[in-house]
Amino acid sequence: MVIKPNGYAIWELMQGALDGMFKDTGHVNAYFPLFIPESFMKKEAEHVEGFAPQCAVVTHGGGKELEEPLYVRPTSETVIWHCYKKWIQSYRDLPLLINQWANVVRWELRTKLFLRTLEFLWQEGHTAHATYDEAEAEARTILDIYARFSEEWMAVPVIKGIKTESEKFAGADHTYCIEAMTQDLRAIQAGTSHHLGQNFAKAFDVTFQSPEGELEYVYATSWGVSTRLVGTLIMAHSDDKGLSAPPRLAPTQVVLIPMGKDEETRAKTYPVADAIAADIKGRLWREAKIRVKVDKRERESPGFKYNDWELKGACLRIELGPRDLESNSCILARRDTSEKSTVALGEVAAMVEAELSAMQDRMFKSALELRNANMKRVDTWEEFTKVFEGEGGAGFVLAHWDGDPATEEAISKETKATIRCIPLNPFDPGDESPGKCVKTGKPSQRRVVFAKAY
Amino acid sequence: MVIKPNGYAIWELMQGALDGMFKDTGHVNAYFPLFIPESFMKKEAEHVEGFAPQCAVVTHGGGKELEEPLYVRPTSETVIWHCYKKWIQSYRDLPLLINQWANVVRWELRTKLFLRTLEFLWQEGHTAHATYDEAEAEARTILDIYARFSEEWMAVPVIKGIKTESEKFAGADHTYCIEAMTQDLRAIQAGTSHHLGQNFAKAFDVTFQSPEGELEYVYATSWGVSTRLVGTLIMAHSDDKGLSAPPRLAPTQVVLIPMGKDEETRAKTYPVADAIAADIKGRLWREAKIRVKVDKRERESPGFKYNDWELKGACLRIELGPRDLESNSCILARRDTSEKSTVALGEVAAMVEAELSAMQDRMFKSALELRNANMKRVDTWEEFTKVFEGEGGAGFVLAHWDGDPATEEAISKETKATIRCIPLNPFDPGDESPGKCVKTGKPSQRRVVFAKAY
Repeated sequence: MVIKPNGYAIWELMQGALDGMFKDTGHVNAYFPLFIPESFMKKEAEHVEGFAPQCAVVTHGGGKELEEPLYVRPTSETVIWHCYKKWIQSYRDLPLLINQWANVVRWELRTKLFLRTLEFLWQEGHTAHATYDEAEAEARTILDIYARFSEEWMAVPVIKGIKTESEKFAGADHTYCIEAMTQDLRAIQAGTSHHLGQNFAKAFDVTFQSPEGELEYVYATSWGVSTRLVGTLIMAHSDDKGLSAPPRLAPTQVVLIPMGKDEETRAKTYPVADAIAADIKGRLWREAKIRVKVDKRERESPGFKYNDWELKGACLRIELGPRDLESNSCILARRDTSEKSTVALGEVAAMVEAELSAMQDRMFKSALELRNANMKRVDTWEEFTKVFEGEGGAGFVLAHWDGDPATEEAISKETKATIRCIPLNPFDPGDESPGKCVKTGKPSQRRVVFAKAY
Repeated sequence: MVIKPNGYAIWELMQGALDGMFKDTGHVNAYFPLFIPESFMKKEAEHVEGFAPQCAVVTHGGGKELEEPLYVRPTSETVIWHCYKKWIQSYRDLPLLINQWANVVRWELRTKLFLRTLEFLWQEGHTAHATYDEAEAEARTILDIYARFSEEWMAVPVIKGIKTESEKFAGADHTYCIEAMTQDLRAIQAGTSHHLGQNFAKAFDVTFQSPEGELEYVYATSWGVSTRLVGTLIMAHSDDKGLSAPPRLAPTQVVLIPMGKDEETRAKTYPVADAIAADIKGRLWREAKIRVKVDKRERESPGFKYNDWELKGACLRIELGPRDLESNSCILARRDTSEKSTVALGEVAAMVEAELSAMQDRMFKSALELRNANMKRVDTWEEFTKVFEGEGGAGFVLAHWDGDPATEEAISKETKATIRCIPLNPFDPGDESPGKCVKTGKPSQRRVVFAKAY
């Protein structure tokens, strides 16, 4: 996967927002090596079983065959806990709240741009705590950050939930996740936060001396979101004209297109465009400078430019033609609704802030409506198989499950629907009441979320 | 190499500053793959010869042996020019000004933390231009950005120069560099900017249609600085007490240490410390929020804290003791000079800005004085060998060289001094006058810079 500049700009904006949220909650960044010796990988049994088959392996370096193969990190628990053993001795060293921005590699045969790629960019947090409860609170704090980022920045509603045993992270005690829905009604796992218990501390022998002088194993979490979020954003909002990005994460929030077919026109429209752009640039929206461009490409027609900026996801387009200028007005076009209106020149800069806010809200609301309209409760196997017929996505299905991994696997084999999560907050109190498994009829404690996933 | 949080924070500050400079000059960021197929590497003859022996090679992925080995990028020219072939058709697509923040791997047997590591973090710019002159201007623009960043942010004076044929980048037409001096009088190549001519365009068959309809090969540059800059900063400024970082790149610019041996003391000192910290945090210095911490660790003594923050390179330390408070004053200590003074409580926050500016200037001046005091002109082989005797660094030696790579190699073999660069701007007009090679006595056009390097 090559991430071109417009896509990478979305990732940079995501990084900036998330990094601020992590730092506000006491985390610091660090960097650990790309290559993990095979022996490190093998220390946690579940972990190596889950990840080794997905790894790229370096066998040669500096022109020679290596004595020990190096795994290109698929995730960094092992190399980080190797370090933490040296860094943690006493309860005074805890909690340790470290995050890393990095690339990771997981071998994939069928790749899908941004959603499932051999290499991807991500952040991975790795924390160490004195108690189970502290680690649990950390895993939940991060889950909340991910959900808040997804809803408030990406304008993508998510379900916070817990993964089933079969779907949890290899080496975790339990895994929390946020699940989003795309416009084609599939589920995307947009972020995960793992409570690792003492598994890695035991595998890497990381103990600390408690205030009472006892040696105890450390509790751990790890958590990550990746460039898959860029894919999630695209799949949640874009349309046949191209990218539609929520204003907070749009590389270009406002583009001004002054008509310029000849020198005379340009002499009229360009200074007005520059003055409005300067006015907008001097304003803040949601504590950030507004990202404005003036498109003065002389070889391209206005129509070409409109399409080009719709493709690239500019939120607001301000068209400045000589006729509009004569009446001291311009045209304001909105990317998400395609709505156009005539606005007085003197008012357009000030309007931008309100328009961006309205668009951010509108896009979230629209995604939420789609999600809610495509979430249903299903109680019979006949209906369940009918819902998931065919190749496409079928939204979220809240159904009862008997809690048996074998049932989970059978359902997935037959319908391609998987259990996305057991929601932390029920949509309806009834969802947490007991019932009968949609597949086996055995007792079920509560409904879980099924969907076809990317 | 593991980069721990305090070191990584320096790198983050460096990234922020450089990224802003690149964007201000029209560059955008993108991301290209970590793995480069062997066949790409082999397309540019000089390049593969220079880099292949330093590469880590992935031979297995997803549990299977690969048909074609993948090289872990030592630099990304080949994979990027593979893409540029698809992206560039017409003069309208030029210039293409792309930068990437990434990790790279170069196999090293003898590593030195931050300065020479198997894996390092860097940025690599890769630009494409219609003409030789445009590419040349780009390479020079970036060299100037690097020099400006080094001097104005890192407080490290550098010599801008051009590399000899033997030292240039494998595949470049010519290479510019900035060379810094460490306190132990060695040279560090702190950044390079390469004019690649049409070498990569020819190797990857990247042509464009000119306005006249002709097909022409594209001209290229590439340029990079890495986490080696963190090492450069450390080697230029630090002392036996630990890190001394110039204020613009110091993770902690101000630390407040309120005495707190008992509850009664803390009740007096903590609120004052918090109020001063809040006052400082509300101020900007050089357009950025001031980075302040209040150290309230109750288990550590003031002496321990002083040493700890000196180790971590906090620029200014404000000590708040109950006795100082009675006289409405505090102690202000400066990391670079170890100077302490008594300051009125009501004035200390406002003083911080001036103190940081003074320290930034002082640190540059001090590094410049060291550099200038250790730069000499040498005209005889006897003196030359004497200067470079022994293991240590010996500063910069401006000497004549006959321009022959064989002489360059002989000098390096005998003295371990290498030609760091041919300076772009002479320190003295006489340095650009002809003379006789210090080694062979053959004619020389001008003096070049010799030093032992890291």
